[in-house]
Amino acid sequence: MNPQPIVLINSFEVPRRRGRSLPRRLGASRAFLSTQDGYLSTRLHRSFSPSADFRFVNVAYCESAQAFQAATARPEFTNAHIPVPFHASLYEVVRDNEL
Amino acid sequence: MNPQPIVLINSFEVPRRRGRSLPRRLGASRAFLSTQDGYLSTRLHRSFSPSADFRFVNVAYCESAQAFQAATARPEFTNAHIPVPFHASLYEVVRDNEL
Repeated sequence: MNPQPIVLINSFEVPRRRGRSLPRRLGASRAFLSTQDGYLSTRLHRSFSPSADFRFVNVAYCESAQAFQAATARPEFTNAHIPVPFHASLYEVVRDNEL
Repeated sequence: MNPQPIVLINSFEVPRRRGRSLPRRLGASRAFLSTQDGYLSTRLHRSFSPSADFRFVNVAYCESAQAFQAATARPEFTNAHIPVPFHASLYEVVRDNEL
């Protein structure tokens, strides 16, 4: 395993009274990704405030950008339509402070 | 320790050719937070793409929302001016899938 995993952070804009299906749809995407090479984990966050700019934020770890791009280019992934606007990018961890 | 920590996710909009001072400013905030009750850890992410909607995303863990709110209300924290627009909210983890 790469000692420095790649992180996909995906922030979802969810208007009030929408987004009920989002965790289920994201669960389907995660189930697919978990079968792909290089997938490590995902963590789905829900805001305490219903009026947060991003009601849900998904953080997924993968061994490499190449593995992630290969997995997310497959039709099983791209066909999992997400019904709200979202902002997704690949990140590296530049500072990690555990106490 | 609370078995389910609270997560502060803070996404920073950083225009090209700006934000050079952001990691240093966030480091100063983190150094302060690390002295406060209930602080657990922070992880700073930088996008691979300079044109990502959010060039930096900070993810911080804390034992409780109360501890976080108390720490972030202190002047040492609120005076650490951040020079770019950002989106911050408190989250709970609603799904955690480790392989």
